[in-house]
Amino acid sequence: MERVFNFSAGPAMIPEPVLQKAQSEMLAFGNTGMNVMEMSHRSKMYLEIFDETAALLRKLMNVPNNYKVLFLQGGATAQFSMVPLNLYKNMKSDYVVTGEFAKKAAAEAKRYGEVNIVASSEKVEGSDAKFTYIPQLMPEMFTKDADYVHITTNNTIYGTRFTELPNTGNVPLVADASSNILSEVFDINKFGLIYAGAQKNVGPSGVTIVIIRDDLIGNQLDITPACLNYKIFADADSMPNTPSTYSIYVAGLVFKWLDEMGGVPVIQKINEEKAALLYNYLDDSSLFTTNVNKKDRSLMNVTFFSKDADMDDKFVKEAAKAGLVNLKGYRSVGGMRASIYNAMPTNGLKTLVEFMKKFEIENK
Amino acid sequence: MERVFNFSAGPAMIPEPVLQKAQSEMLAFGNTGMNVMEMSHRSKMYLEIFDETAALLRKLMNVPNNYKVLFLQGGATAQFSMVPLNLYKNMKSDYVVTGEFAKKAAAEAKRYGEVNIVASSEKVEGSDAKFTYIPQLMPEMFTKDADYVHITTNNTIYGTRFTELPNTGNVPLVADASSNILSEVFDINKFGLIYAGAQKNVGPSGVTIVIIRDDLIGNQLDITPACLNYKIFADADSMPNTPSTYSIYVAGLVFKWLDEMGGVPVIQKINEEKAALLYNYLDDSSLFTTNVNKKDRSLMNVTFFSKDADMDDKFVKEAAKAGLVNLKGYRSVGGMRASIYNAMPTNGLKTLVEFMKKFEIENK
Repeated sequence: MERVFNFSAGPAMIPEPVLQKAQSEMLAFGNTGMNVMEMSHRSKMYLEIFDETAALLRKLMNVPNNYKVLFLQGGATAQFSMVPLNLYKNMKSDYVVTGEFAKKAAAEAKRYGEVNIVASSEKVEGSDAKFTYIPQLMPEMFTKDADYVHITTNNTIYGTRFTELPNTGNVPLVADASSNILSEVFDINKFGLIYAGAQKNVGPSGVTIVIIRDDLIGNQLDITPACLNYKIFADADSMPNTPSTYSIYVAGLVFKWLDEMGGVPVIQKINEEKAALLYNYLDDSSLFTTNVNKKDRSLMNVTFFSKDADMDDKFVKEAAKAGLVNLKGYRSVGGMRASIYNAMPTNGLKTLVEFMKKFEIENK
Repeated sequence: MERVFNFSAGPAMIPEPVLQKAQSEMLAFGNTGMNVMEMSHRSKMYLEIFDETAALLRKLMNVPNNYKVLFLQGGATAQFSMVPLNLYKNMKSDYVVTGEFAKKAAAEAKRYGEVNIVASSEKVEGSDAKFTYIPQLMPEMFTKDADYVHITTNNTIYGTRFTELPNTGNVPLVADASSNILSEVFDINKFGLIYAGAQKNVGPSGVTIVIIRDDLIGNQLDITPACLNYKIFADADSMPNTPSTYSIYVAGLVFKWLDEMGGVPVIQKINEEKAALLYNYLDDSSLFTTNVNKKDRSLMNVTFFSKDADMDDKFVKEAAKAGLVNLKGYRSVGGMRASIYNAMPTNGLKTLVEFMKKFEIENK
């Protein structure tokens, strides 16, 4: 069976060399006589894998010494709860709402304290579309004594991203980077906390990366469940209990693949080139368009439309037959979405654009 | 590299045919052109895998229709919080403390309401040992208006298990079955809720099985985080967000392996025979002993000692050289522990007992 170009928004493609490596180590890792998923998380052999994985992530993201790197469970959804439960002191926070997941994060925080929606792009003037841009953010928009400001660095559903970070002054910036972590260079010093579910740019679902500044650890509310307390995980180096051992191992293989390629600056350039192939074509096409504000275009999720819903359907079906799968847009948005994370090869974009050109000629 | 007999307490052995199947499907599952970990959790192809896995678990455990089966994250530790957060109404519960994990579960519940320790085997009369037996439980010991009674069906660290369930009357029985789920027949009707981290008898860590009676869903406390709310997971068939997709797939392969073998009654018989091989030898040995109360002996974790700590060390090291690994006992207990879950072949026990006999002769 030939592998397809899989444009799924997540879980999503894993680099083929990573799968090959995992396949070769399936019955026995090195000279251990066992698969990684059979190793005790407290064993020397597993701790070596874990420590190497954490060290590689620190290297790839250039994480300063005053930040902890944690491998947790529960996805970004668990972070929607953990962030307010652990960071609320003045019991107020600012949220920038740029998509469905940002809305969910804000709704969960509101259950524990005051939430100020400092900006939202849900309503787009003169259009029925939603969330097609990133709002302009000025320092004076933020609440002076907020415990944190929350943003979503890339909006998977709508195909927008922050191309510059807001200046929040002394208030810690907290970011959900689930769909563009490791895809472009982030200056960790600009964040108090950055988190990401793994299943888009990191590895299998079931592991969540949290990078948190030391001073934000240990202030949890009394009601915080032990399983959602950053301090308990930080003190036990992510292992107060059994973590997602195999998913962390696969994430480590992805980190090695990325590191050997030259790291985040190199993949960022590749990602910019990959996205440009599709956006340049969309800007020229007379059949396909994108409604995302040009300066806010995502490098990871490209949303686009043909002339109507029937044509969209026809396109998605014919593309799938040609080995270009999972191009259907999110149900509430319609149209198409090509998710082109780190693991999507440039050839996937070239093949997609060639296919779109042919489809456009056949359907004009 | 030859595979070893891995007596790890968890994560632990996976049946070799399961690893071989996962290996063969690593680059492409069926005709999908992708690995299961690359599939969207909302895709038809993944939902087929998920639904088949859930149906197989229901079949294997004979789960009645008025119970939901959920695949969650966070291990048993997350359940220590979820149980009180979702089940407290009268704000009181009964816990039977038969090991470290039972203690942890009780401590977490106490943060949200009243906890009655109805029985504990922590102190063993006339001995420095702890938790070597299961306390005798009579119906009148339980609190009439408790919201639930919590037990740990098998104690991984100490090697004890409940061989009969307590009669708790109308109060729901909640059980942590992390280390013996699917190893022996349980009558689900006797439980309100039964949960288990996967990494002992089910599959890779990172997925938690919860089987919960319908009437216990939807009564969560107001402070319950969305990510710990049974109702949200039950309403969305375990997928309000992305579950541990690959771990669930591997669990499904384990379920198939077990089903094809004849299911839980068949593996229970094998487990009884496997455990008997080791216990019978321990009862006869003049070097090795076990301090666990005979009627409460675990079928999954066998704890034992030689004449002193130095001899224990020597045994563990020599056994490892012979391909019998991870036999060291839990740090606070000392001695040895052989964890012999479903995936440990009978031949592993035979090889271990032969090795112990040889060691005994050489060291008497």
